[in-house]
Amino acid sequence: MITNTERRSSAEQRLADLGITLPPAPSPLGAYVGAVQVGQLLYLSGTLPSEGGVPKFLGKLGGELSIEEGKSATRLAALNALALAKRQLGSLDKVTRVVRLTVSLVTTPEFRDHAKVADGASELLADVFGPEKTSTRMVSGVTSLPLGASAVVEVLLSIEGQSH
Amino acid sequence: MITNTERRSSAEQRLADLGITLPPAPSPLGAYVGAVQVGQLLYLSGTLPSEGGVPKFLGKLGGELSIEEGKSATRLAALNALALAKRQLGSLDKVTRVVRLTVSLVTTPEFRDHAKVADGASELLADVFGPEKTSTRMVSGVTSLPLGASAVVEVLLSIEGQSH
Amino acid sequence: MITNTERRSSAEQRLADLGITLPPAPSPLGAYVGAVQVGQLLYLSGTLPSEGGVPKFLGKLGGELSIEEGKSATRLAALNALALAKRQLGSLDKVTRVVRLTVSLVTTPEFRDHAKVADGASELLADVFGPEKTSTRMVSGVTSLPLGASAVVEVLLSIEGQSH
Repeated sequence: MITNTERRSSAEQRLADLGITLPPAPSPLGAYVGAVQVGQLLYLSGTLPSEGGVPKFLGKLGGELSIEEGKSATRLAALNALALAKRQLGSLDKVTRVVRLTVSLVTTPEFRDHAKVADGASELLADVFGPEKTSTRMVSGVTSLPLGASAVVEVLLSIEGQSH
Repeated sequence: MITNTERRSSAEQRLADLGITLPPAPSPLGAYVGAVQVGQLLYLSGTLPSEGGVPKFLGKLGGELSIEEGKSATRLAALNALALAKRQLGSLDKVTRVVRLTVSLVTTPEFRDHAKVADGASELLADVFGPEKTSTRMVSGVTSLPLGASAVVEVLLSIEGQSH
Repeated sequence: MITNTERRSSAEQRLADLGITLPPAPSPLGAYVGAVQVGQLLYLSGTLPSEGGVPKFLGKLGGELSIEEGKSATRLAALNALALAKRQLGSLDKVTRVVRLTVSLVTTPEFRDHAKVADGASELLADVFGPEKTSTRMVSGVTSLPLGASAVVEVLLSIEGQSH
């Protein structure tokens, strides 16, 4: 029997409770795939803040893009990463940990608030998987990104029941 | 007995069929090594589009460097990565999957065609290992790279028969 | 019985011999954690050249920051990474290999000496863990980093005795 408490701790249940419907998994922009599983690790490709292949929240952090807009951008990119994971795994309940989150942001040279912007992705992942599965993180400010996007996230997950 | 079909699906055979001779494994530019194996993962250091230690295809994407030249640059960098893997493994036939490819390109702020340029590396890897072993990918546009290179690639491979 | 030779090959002993006292593990700047362990891999978050949360060695490589200052910056960032690992593991003697080191530096577009600057981190890691545990490496020059820092390092370690 699955209790209410256990159901609430499920990533899929949390998604439903949050009213989040995952977007379709984004199509690759070139000769790569969205996800590769090795043992208990699930590698996901970098994902953009895009809807239907069109980047949203364009511009530079520290320039025309506010921190709040930047947070929305990294959150949307993380939703696209979750869509890749869901397509690969069938259910996000198989995720045992968010291992690593890499965030690259297009910024002015003076920008300093990378951490606040990257929290848009980190907070979504904590909402979905629970704070006890929080990842390590690496963030940097770059010159340009594919399709003129303002952010890209790359997520590494660990998953259950994988033999080597 | 090894059949023709099996030989054709071998990475080493494919290299020969493509007429590709791998370059010597590039020397490290500092206090690091070319490859580290952990369990079934083989980590390779970032490799440049260099020949004999000299970077080729200099310049910025979106500036003096065309997309075709950029593709040649990422292809050459990936050849150097394969040379590191070959030296470590003895044979590229031990590779079971290209897990992850990270590409950083020196670009103008306006450049958007990162995916086309990174395909120079991805297409080489697909030619050598077969499309069924295609990797995940993360691409960004950066300010500068070691030795003034225009591109760097970092390849993560999985390999067979490794106990933990 | 532990012989002198074995004690000398211990990372904790080496730290003591070098007169290095690790700083307190740096606090996360946002919704992430310092370290995540998966099987025999220990992922660490990106760490800055900071003391007590304040970045040191500010400026751009190729501009106001010399190569020697840059080396001090990546060394300090690597010390912060070791502090994260020590807190997670209890003892650095559990580290079996430095697998991968990623270094991002804030540079002018003309800067070419990334490898020399990244060696500040690599040489510290070799001093502590021994040259036989040297890592792979990936270095790039970026536009900006969190808190206006000039460098960030990300370290991936393998550790002993982990079942999967």
